[in-house]
Amino acid sequence: MSTHNPVFIPGPTNIPEEIRKACDIPTLDHRSPAFARLFKPAVAGIRRVLAMDQGEIIILPSTGTGGWEAAITNTLSSGDKVLAPRFGMFSHRWIDLCQRHGLDVQIIETPWGQGAPLAEIEAALRADSAHEIKAVLATHNETATGVRSDIAGIRRALDAAGHPALLLVDGVSSIGSMPFDMAGWGVDIAVAGSQKGFMLPAGLAILGVSPKALNAMEKATLPRTFFDFRDMLAAYAAGGYPYTPAVGLIAGLAKAIEMLEDEGLENVYARHHRLAEATRRAVAAWGMRPCAATPELYSDTVTAVVVPEGCNGTDLVQLAASKYGVAFGVGLGEVAGKVFRIGHLGMLSDVMLLSGLATAEMCMADLGWDVQLGSGVAAAQEYLRNSAGVALARAA
Amino acid sequence: MSTHNPVFIPGPTNIPEEIRKACDIPTLDHRSPAFARLFKPAVAGIRRVLAMDQGEIIILPSTGTGGWEAAITNTLSSGDKVLAPRFGMFSHRWIDLCQRHGLDVQIIETPWGQGAPLAEIEAALRADSAHEIKAVLATHNETATGVRSDIAGIRRALDAAGHPALLLVDGVSSIGSMPFDMAGWGVDIAVAGSQKGFMLPAGLAILGVSPKALNAMEKATLPRTFFDFRDMLAAYAAGGYPYTPAVGLIAGLAKAIEMLEDEGLENVYARHHRLAEATRRAVAAWGMRPCAATPELYSDTVTAVVVPEGCNGTDLVQLAASKYGVAFGVGLGEVAGKVFRIGHLGMLSDVMLLSGLATAEMCMADLGWDVQLGSGVAAAQEYLRNSAGVALARAA
Amino acid sequence: MSTHNPVFIPGPTNIPEEIRKACDIPTLDHRSPAFARLFKPAVAGIRRVLAMDQGEIIILPSTGTGGWEAAITNTLSSGDKVLAPRFGMFSHRWIDLCQRHGLDVQIIETPWGQGAPLAEIEAALRADSAHEIKAVLATHNETATGVRSDIAGIRRALDAAGHPALLLVDGVSSIGSMPFDMAGWGVDIAVAGSQKGFMLPAGLAILGVSPKALNAMEKATLPRTFFDFRDMLAAYAAGGYPYTPAVGLIAGLAKAIEMLEDEGLENVYARHHRLAEATRRAVAAWGMRPCAATPELYSDTVTAVVVPEGCNGTDLVQLAASKYGVAFGVGLGEVAGKVFRIGHLGMLSDVMLLSGLATAEMCMADLGWDVQLGSGVAAAQEYLRNSAGVALARAA
Amino acid sequence: MSTHNPVFIPGPTNIPEEIRKACDIPTLDHRSPAFARLFKPAVAGIRRVLAMDQGEIIILPSTGTGGWEAAITNTLSSGDKVLAPRFGMFSHRWIDLCQRHGLDVQIIETPWGQGAPLAEIEAALRADSAHEIKAVLATHNETATGVRSDIAGIRRALDAAGHPALLLVDGVSSIGSMPFDMAGWGVDIAVAGSQKGFMLPAGLAILGVSPKALNAMEKATLPRTFFDFRDMLAAYAAGGYPYTPAVGLIAGLAKAIEMLEDEGLENVYARHHRLAEATRRAVAAWGMRPCAATPELYSDTVTAVVVPEGCNGTDLVQLAASKYGVAFGVGLGEVAGKVFRIGHLGMLSDVMLLSGLATAEMCMADLGWDVQLGSGVAAAQEYLRNSAGVALARAA
Repeated sequence: MSTHNPVFIPGPTNIPEEIRKACDIPTLDHRSPAFARLFKPAVAGIRRVLAMDQGEIIILPSTGTGGWEAAITNTLSSGDKVLAPRFGMFSHRWIDLCQRHGLDVQIIETPWGQGAPLAEIEAALRADSAHEIKAVLATHNETATGVRSDIAGIRRALDAAGHPALLLVDGVSSIGSMPFDMAGWGVDIAVAGSQKGFMLPAGLAILGVSPKALNAMEKATLPRTFFDFRDMLAAYAAGGYPYTPAVGLIAGLAKAIEMLEDEGLENVYARHHRLAEATRRAVAAWGMRPCAATPELYSDTVTAVVVPEGCNGTDLVQLAASKYGVAFGVGLGEVAGKVFRIGHLGMLSDVMLLSGLATAEMCMADLGWDVQLGSGVAAAQEYLRNSAGVALARAA
Repeated sequence: MSTHNPVFIPGPTNIPEEIRKACDIPTLDHRSPAFARLFKPAVAGIRRVLAMDQGEIIILPSTGTGGWEAAITNTLSSGDKVLAPRFGMFSHRWIDLCQRHGLDVQIIETPWGQGAPLAEIEAALRADSAHEIKAVLATHNETATGVRSDIAGIRRALDAAGHPALLLVDGVSSIGSMPFDMAGWGVDIAVAGSQKGFMLPAGLAILGVSPKALNAMEKATLPRTFFDFRDMLAAYAAGGYPYTPAVGLIAGLAKAIEMLEDEGLENVYARHHRLAEATRRAVAAWGMRPCAATPELYSDTVTAVVVPEGCNGTDLVQLAASKYGVAFGVGLGEVAGKVFRIGHLGMLSDVMLLSGLATAEMCMADLGWDVQLGSGVAAAQEYLRNSAGVALARAA
Repeated sequence: MSTHNPVFIPGPTNIPEEIRKACDIPTLDHRSPAFARLFKPAVAGIRRVLAMDQGEIIILPSTGTGGWEAAITNTLSSGDKVLAPRFGMFSHRWIDLCQRHGLDVQIIETPWGQGAPLAEIEAALRADSAHEIKAVLATHNETATGVRSDIAGIRRALDAAGHPALLLVDGVSSIGSMPFDMAGWGVDIAVAGSQKGFMLPAGLAILGVSPKALNAMEKATLPRTFFDFRDMLAAYAAGGYPYTPAVGLIAGLAKAIEMLEDEGLENVYARHHRLAEATRRAVAAWGMRPCAATPELYSDTVTAVVVPEGCNGTDLVQLAASKYGVAFGVGLGEVAGKVFRIGHLGMLSDVMLLSGLATAEMCMADLGWDVQLGSGVAAAQEYLRNSAGVALARAA
Repeated sequence: MSTHNPVFIPGPTNIPEEIRKACDIPTLDHRSPAFARLFKPAVAGIRRVLAMDQGEIIILPSTGTGGWEAAITNTLSSGDKVLAPRFGMFSHRWIDLCQRHGLDVQIIETPWGQGAPLAEIEAALRADSAHEIKAVLATHNETATGVRSDIAGIRRALDAAGHPALLLVDGVSSIGSMPFDMAGWGVDIAVAGSQKGFMLPAGLAILGVSPKALNAMEKATLPRTFFDFRDMLAAYAAGGYPYTPAVGLIAGLAKAIEMLEDEGLENVYARHHRLAEATRRAVAAWGMRPCAATPELYSDTVTAVVVPEGCNGTDLVQLAASKYGVAFGVGLGEVAGKVFRIGHLGMLSDVMLLSGLATAEMCMADLGWDVQLGSGVAAAQEYLRNSAGVALARAA
């Protein structure tokens, strides 16, 4: 029997019925006004989700990795210096990408489980009196460890140092699920993807670009064509696209924004927090802890659960898939085996989350881990039922 | 946010992705060979699911109620006597239908929570030495109380009494989910619907008709046209349908049978039993009991849970819907308020079931019932994880 | 290769994308308020499409044939006399249904290709001074011959004769596509189906019922349960349904009405007229004629094309299906072989229609009929391009 | 009313029902074996469609433009010389892309309407005795002019000149619709997209890469990460993907290949040729001619129709969209206004094509062009009905 179990990977997330239908459309001429009728509300909506005031939105038929590449190739030139803390697999990969494109990355090595180290960033910026650092890279939500970094704090560090570097932020696994304030935080480029908080299939890189970044674009010499913001902006101005867009995903994006705003962005964030907190209550009841070192670092979209000594998180993930048909995330890189990850973002209800927690518990028991069946579920139930006010589940 | 919570009503059941896609097709000429290519495998598959040897399959664009009406109008005449035990809302409704069509129903009143009373049936048949009783009506699975009756036992009663009455069986909420043996049990008409074990939307009444019932059809004078088996059989013979069929549902039915047979009917029945047993373990852990009086009566498709004195099952159902977006079944008729019903049939996985049990528990706590959060879930988890061999969940 | 050729059968019609999506929904508890939110607008919309003022709407999980049966079993009693003209296969079938339910049908035999004969109807009514005739049956649009009858004229005949008989109208292939005025014409029951003008899959019989018919319902003794209006009305009043409804189709019906009203019913009727007229221009260019005897009888939903002496319309239908993958309708009954039928109702654009006309022409040439390729297409093109004002095709 | 008119743009093409359903799937963990079960047959099928023997397939969540970029960044280094004829908008854009990535493009300017000039290519290669030219770029099917170039001829030119340059081919609008022989023609990289012959939505760039190109990859220094073949190949080898893949499109690609192979690639090519020839017959009947200069250049996927002096092709395209809801392609660049384009690739039947031709005729008449209604349709009908043997339309 095919099952309809939810997925608990930290993206791609469960796709709502309405979004599946919005994406699944007959062919539509992307040079026609009908396309513009889909595209414009999607762009306008993204501005609101990012809390942008000025600047431009770029939507590329690509993924988050493409978004990272677009962010740097459109603003930097070969040999430019960028400052980047590394504290997980995704911050690592963006750094690697920069290096492969010929940038000089000043890496601040940070323990996994920590977030972007504000003091060290500020110190590095202050030390760069020649302003050789052209950009600071920050991973808002490190998906590998379930750590949220303080982007506003990085902005304060930049301002305190009086440093003009661009602030480029990977918000792939945060935007649309956790508060993001592009204008307030002075973010120059925010990178999002379709397949996380926007609840779409993978296939779109979505970028908010500040006027300052647009200005940098004019001088940046890293080669790019597919990702070139200039072609995009010229085509948008003419109501079109420089090449064939992913029409269905753009239609779905417009729908996703409508759904997020119907729920209310504040309610969406509150729901994510509540489900994350329920997950953490379950983790505590299991006698385990999140990989994120301290509560202010806890991600509201993914929890990397540190498994007990002698246990292997990857075993749990494999057993959940093979025995129960449920997908969790494995530990990556430094924390491979040491954690398993529960994604709790996108379309998720109390009831769906409880099924994931119950599955994790069964796997633990199956693997002989020392856990009491029902314990995590009960802790989550208790929290969920007493905090339901903000986000009552509504029948479809 | 729209949620994708499973439903736990005892039908319509959760529709698998594959079946939704099979049903959702462009218009197809129902007088073309393309229709016959859909229809014939559906008919052939139904024969296997019913374990028929001889006789005919009738598929009507209707529902279970229409199936009941078709069963009697095609085999009986005004004033005919039928014997029928009444022990729940659905056995009651079929009796009511018979009376409205001018049949003389000899009702064996039976406590709700009991099944068809074999001894009383046999006694009534033996008493009917003139063979005025033309048919015995039996509800295989009484959806209101979660009681499975012993159809083989009724056949034995008929045979023991040497009585020639037809045996007409409502299998709407059993067929495709619990073992059914039309040939072995000597059933003359079996009535099924699309929206239960076949995992389709409502809209088809599906009937297996024995040669003996086909013979009765020739003499039956209750008026019917839409439901007339003769028109159906004549049209089928010509590769067609006497009026416009529900083409999409028939395409879906063919797919449903393919899915049931890919899983293996025995595995399907074992899965239903296992999920039902897990539910009953949870019920016991809550300190409650099924409405079905004894274990041999327990239904594998629906459990009517008797709620504690002073509690109201309907409150739980309403709260589950309004607060958690989950649908359970209310108590009907005599047991209104006294039970709530958990449907566990059709497409359902361990993981989906656990989410329903967890929801019921939260509602109980919310309503101030004396139940420990996680207790039912833990009992079900323990059972499920140790019995997973027969029905390993498979990722879609 | 699978093709996406439109169908040109006179129902089921091509299903719009939006309606397919509206129908294809996850399982929803039909006892929940969510169902009522779908059902009520559908009912309210049907009232507007039928131009009803008083009375009730009944929506049955059935087909047009079931609608016919419901219309008579809810208003008449065994032995009642009804008056009915017969001038095609569908008027014939309703008469046959009446006879099988024990009604005494006074048939006015009328040549196929003609419509309901007003003078003869009036004469029969006047002759019935005892008012034994309880109902007049009329087929608004005879799908077999492409003939529209004058229902207002039948009302005038009833009024002129001062006859109290009910007026029961089969509008299955007219309602939603051609003007219908239930209140103005004094129709007592109007029968529609989901699969014609409402552009849905088959599976719903839709009836408008006047207060006079509701009054007759109280006294009617023909047996019925599945089709019983009383159960339906009692359940509707409680926000529900007496048995499991076809939830998806009802959701689709609500969408269909939204689409019809977005286009504007007058525009919908004008579009049907325009496409029908284009078809008739093509027919004339081929040197053929409609089966309908005179222009005022021409149906705007289906044209039965009389084929030349020595030709067989069924050959064309079979060749179109086997060689070009296009479905037309065969001639039925008296006109079998003598006509082929082009359905031009429901979702149909200029462009789709032209593809059907072009296909018919190719088949004619393939069969050696004396027709000039492109001739019918050109006549239709000329008409369509000069009459596009009312119904500009709009890109999806 | 929404219409279901086919599109006649030269891509994205009409999407078959089966492929839409294959793409539209619930979220599936792309790190699970379930993903590999989708991905591997897609890759294997692409090898067959390209007629590859050795080498690798790369599938990127991108578009044809991304495929062009991937082809050069993975095989070339800054300052490398490439040879490229320019004879249309798409050959122009690839050249532009090369220049923006720092390549030194030796352009052979060729009149639009001509194909790749073999003699000039050979001469340029012979003149390059130092083998500074690292690659020859060729647009197999120039979508702007409807011209097919002779890729085998370019291979002969390379061989005749004894030149080791790579042969990089844009097959975006040919592969899957017209014969392609990667091994036989010695193509080093073939670039395809999902939205043309593969009948999918846009969103995948599909590349076949020869061993020689893989060898070049090791030394190429153009920066790339998102498009880096090395990351892809390493991830594939581990059964995965270096970042989130477009799972739905890959599932659809597997289905597309199944459909192409069920029809038979030779039959697919024959069908495209036949529909293209029917289009050209219509064009001739209108008194017009294809933009492609000579018959051996005629594309079987798109015809750019040269409009009469004083007429503007863009007017026709706009009128077809606004009045009839049908999409054709406008002329681009040098031929803007001078042509309109009829795409006849992907899922297309005789009947669908005829509707497009009929629409174009109506627009011509509406615009006052000197054309006889029905003339092009008749020419196409005559050809289609007499050549139906190879590709009988099959009902869905």
